[in-house]
Amino acid sequence: MAIQDLFGQPLKAVNIGLEDFAKSLESQGAEVVHVDWRPPLEGYVELTHTKDGIDIDEANAEALQRIRKGRPLLVGMGIAKDVVPGMEDRMLLHAGPPIEWERMCGPMRGAVMGAIVYEGWAETYEEAEKMAASGEIKFDPCHHHHLVGPMAGVTSPSMPVFIVKNETFGNLSYATQNEGLGRVLRYGAYGDDVLERLRWMEKELYPALKRALEVTGPIDLRSILAQALHMGDEGHNRNRAATSLLLRQISPAVIETSPKEVAIAVLKFIDSNDHFFLNLSMAALKAMVEPAEGIAGSTVITVMARNGTDFGIRVASMPDRWFTAPAPIVKGLWLPGYSEEDANPDIGDSSITETVGCGGFAMAAAPAIVRFVGGSASLALSVTQEMYQITVGEHEFFTVPVLNFRGTPLGIDVRKVMASGILPFINTGVAHKKPGIGMVGAGLVRAPKKCFEDAFAALVEAFS
Amino acid sequence: MAIQDLFGQPLKAVNIGLEDFAKSLESQGAEVVHVDWRPPLEGYVELTHTKDGIDIDEANAEALQRIRKGRPLLVGMGIAKDVVPGMEDRMLLHAGPPIEWERMCGPMRGAVMGAIVYEGWAETYEEAEKMAASGEIKFDPCHHHHLVGPMAGVTSPSMPVFIVKNETFGNLSYATQNEGLGRVLRYGAYGDDVLERLRWMEKELYPALKRALEVTGPIDLRSILAQALHMGDEGHNRNRAATSLLLRQISPAVIETSPKEVAIAVLKFIDSNDHFFLNLSMAALKAMVEPAEGIAGSTVITVMARNGTDFGIRVASMPDRWFTAPAPIVKGLWLPGYSEEDANPDIGDSSITETVGCGGFAMAAAPAIVRFVGGSASLALSVTQEMYQITVGEHEFFTVPVLNFRGTPLGIDVRKVMASGILPFINTGVAHKKPGIGMVGAGLVRAPKKCFEDAFAALVEAFS
Repeated sequence: MAIQDLFGQPLKAVNIGLEDFAKSLESQGAEVVHVDWRPPLEGYVELTHTKDGIDIDEANAEALQRIRKGRPLLVGMGIAKDVVPGMEDRMLLHAGPPIEWERMCGPMRGAVMGAIVYEGWAETYEEAEKMAASGEIKFDPCHHHHLVGPMAGVTSPSMPVFIVKNETFGNLSYATQNEGLGRVLRYGAYGDDVLERLRWMEKELYPALKRALEVTGPIDLRSILAQALHMGDEGHNRNRAATSLLLRQISPAVIETSPKEVAIAVLKFIDSNDHFFLNLSMAALKAMVEPAEGIAGSTVITVMARNGTDFGIRVASMPDRWFTAPAPIVKGLWLPGYSEEDANPDIGDSSITETVGCGGFAMAAAPAIVRFVGGSASLALSVTQEMYQITVGEHEFFTVPVLNFRGTPLGIDVRKVMASGILPFINTGVAHKKPGIGMVGAGLVRAPKKCFEDAFAALVEAFS
Repeated sequence: MAIQDLFGQPLKAVNIGLEDFAKSLESQGAEVVHVDWRPPLEGYVELTHTKDGIDIDEANAEALQRIRKGRPLLVGMGIAKDVVPGMEDRMLLHAGPPIEWERMCGPMRGAVMGAIVYEGWAETYEEAEKMAASGEIKFDPCHHHHLVGPMAGVTSPSMPVFIVKNETFGNLSYATQNEGLGRVLRYGAYGDDVLERLRWMEKELYPALKRALEVTGPIDLRSILAQALHMGDEGHNRNRAATSLLLRQISPAVIETSPKEVAIAVLKFIDSNDHFFLNLSMAALKAMVEPAEGIAGSTVITVMARNGTDFGIRVASMPDRWFTAPAPIVKGLWLPGYSEEDANPDIGDSSITETVGCGGFAMAAAPAIVRFVGGSASLALSVTQEMYQITVGEHEFFTVPVLNFRGTPLGIDVRKVMASGILPFINTGVAHKKPGIGMVGAGLVRAPKKCFEDAFAALVEAFS
C-alpha cells in the first residue's frame, strides 16, 4: 500500500502502553484500540469455565444484571437488637473481615470501648477495655449481618439503624445513623461528647426520623444516588448533594410529626453533616450487591472491607470466604496538627461503595472531592476511566455527565484485576491510629493485591 | 536545522484554526499556542485608549476587580412598591431593554395582563389588555430599578421581592420569588391557577421567608453559588444544588417562625421547584456587576437582557445606553406537544448570569444541564472554554472543578467579541409565543452580533 493511501483513508491503530498517544489519535477522529499494558499479578492464568462447564462470563453477566436491577428503598428504622439478623446481647459488630480484640487497631478498640460504655456494660473506659479483652464480648463483622459500618463500623445492640429493602429481590440491609466528622465513635473517639451525641441520636434523632419515614413512605435511595452523581457526589466521601436531597424529601414529614424544637434540632444536625447520607449510600449499595452472592462461577467481588488491621474481599461464587491482606496506608490530606505518622491503616466497610460502582469508581462525577481526599481533578477523571478496565460492565442508573452520561464502572472481576494488574481505587477517611482521638484526614488508596491473588488462586482451585 | 534535531527537542507549535490539532499536540506534551481564528465582526478596529488617554485594559481590570470583590448577601424581603427604587403605582417592570405595549411579544403581553388582574387594576384579562394598550400603565425595564426578572420579568407594585446587598460596595438589587416551571406568569401564562399561586406567594410564602430571614440574618449568596458550581449547577437553568443549599440554611428558621402547616407548605413549595434559587442567583449577580457601571474607558458588558422582541446590552463606560437587536430564536428541547414553531424569541433578564460568569459561561461545571437545554456534555465543556476568549478574566470565587478549579470566564469585553467574532453563549428557558400559555422548552442561543457592533461603534466614537 502506498503511503498516500495509508493516510488517505480512515486510520485504525492499536496503541500499547502510554495512553496519551491513543487519546491524541482519537481526538483526530482515528479509531484506536488502546492496550494499557502492565504485567499481570502473580498466579494469573486464563480462566473461562468452571469444572462443571459454567461459562464464567455468563455467570458474571448474571451478577451484573442482578446488581443493576436492584432498587434499594429506605423503608424504615429500628433498634439493632430488634431488627438486625443474628444480633445478640453483648455482641458488637465491626467493619471489615473477622478480627479479635488482640489484633484490633487503635480506632476500632476506641470505638469498642465507647460502645461498651454507651451500652452500660461498663462504667469506665478502663473497665470497658478489660471487658473487651476478657472474651465476654462477641465480635462479629457487620457484613455477616447484612449491615455495613463506616470506619470502625462498631454497631451495638441499642443503636438505631436504617432499614433498606432491595425492592427487586426483597433482601434487606442495615446501617447506623451518621454521627458527623471529627471526634466521633466510628473514627475511634470516645468520651462524654461522643456518647452524648450518640444518646441524642438514639433518643431524639432516631424517633423523629422513624416517625417521618412512616409519613413519607419508602424513600428511593437509588434515585437520590443517581441524582447526586449529577451533582458532584460520588457516594462515598462526598455526600453533600445526597444529604441535601434527603433533607428536602424528609423535612416536611419531620415538621409534621415532631415537636417544633425537635424538628429544628434534627434538621440542624443533618444540615451540619454533609456525610449524613454516607451510611444510607452504603446500605443501599450493600442491598444492591447481595443478590449477586452465591452465583456459581462468578468472579465478581461482592465485598471489599477493612477492619483497620486487615483488608478483606469476598467473591460472588464463594460468598462465605474472606481473602485478606494487611490494610494499606492511605495517602492523605491531613487535618491541622496531624500527619501520616498519626494515621491508622485503611479502615471501614465504606469501600462497599467502590465495590458497587461508586466512591473512587465514580470520582469523575465528583471532581470537587479532591479538595477533601487529595489529588487533582484530572486524577478524579482518570481513576474512573481506569476502573472500567477491571469491571464487568457499567451501572444503568448511576451515570457520569462529564463522560457523556456513561454508567459508572460496576462489578469488579477478580480475573480482570489479575490480568491487568490494576487494583481497585478507594477514597476514604482516615482515623488516628490511637484509640480515643478521631479523624485525622482523608485520602486515596488501592486495595492490596494479595487479596486478589489469593482469591484468584482459590477460584482456580475450585474451578479446576 | 536537521529534521532529527527538530523532533529531538521539545516541540513548540503555533496552531491556527481547527483546535483539535492543538489539543493533540498538547496531549503529547508539546507547548502549543492555539489561535482560534475567525474573521472579526464588522467595524472592528484596534482600541486601546480613550481620547483622554485612559488605558482601556486598566479600566477593564478595575471593572473586573469590582465584580470579583462583590459579596452579595440576601438581607431581607419587602413589597416592590415599598422597597424598589422608582417603583410607582400603575407601573410594571419588565425584562430586557425598554419596550412599549405595541411591540411587546406574546408572553410579555400575557404576563402584563396577568399582573394587571393580580393588582386588581382590571377584573378581566380583556379589560387588562385594553388598559395595557391605553397608555395608563407605565412600563419600565427591571434593570432601570436594580431589579432583574427572569423570562417576561413582569414585576408589579404588590409583588414581594428579595433584597440583596453587595456588602463590599453597599449597592442593593432585587428580584421576585420564583414561581416554578410550566404555567407561570413569567412564561406569559395567566389564569386563576397562575394568580392563585402568586397570591399564595404574597400572603404565605413571602411572610414566612421574611420572618425566617430575620432569624437567620443575611445569607451569603456568593457562598451558595460557589458551592453549587461544585455541585453541578451553573446558576442559570440548573439550580437544584443552590435551591437545596438555600433550603438547608433556612428550614430551621422557617420552622421556628411559622405555624407548622405554613412551614410544611413553604418547604414543599420550594422543594417542588429546583429553579427557586434562579431569581436569587440573578439578583446576586446583578448586585455584583453594578459597581462596575460608570467606569470611564471600560468596554466590559454590564447588562445582557431580552424583552422577547429585542436583545439589549449595556457597557460599563456608558451605563445608560442600550444597544439592541432583534431577539434571536432559541435552539431548544421542547416539552411534549410543542416545537420551535411555538417558541417566542429569546426573553428575560436571566442572561445577567452569563454577563457575570455563570449560566452558559459556567456550563462546564454543570454538564447534566444538557438534559434540560440540549447539547452534549462535551459542548458544555467547550462552551466555557470558548468564553474565556471574550472575557477580561476569571471569577475568584466561582470555580469549575473539572477544569482544575479554574475560575469561570468573567467580564465580557466588547473588543474581544469584535476581534474574535465569538458571541456570548446563553442557555435559557423558552416561552410560548402566544400570551397565556407558558413554558414550551429550554435551549441554547448566542447573543446577536449587532448589539456588539453597535456598542463598539459607539465606543469608538466616544473614545476617538
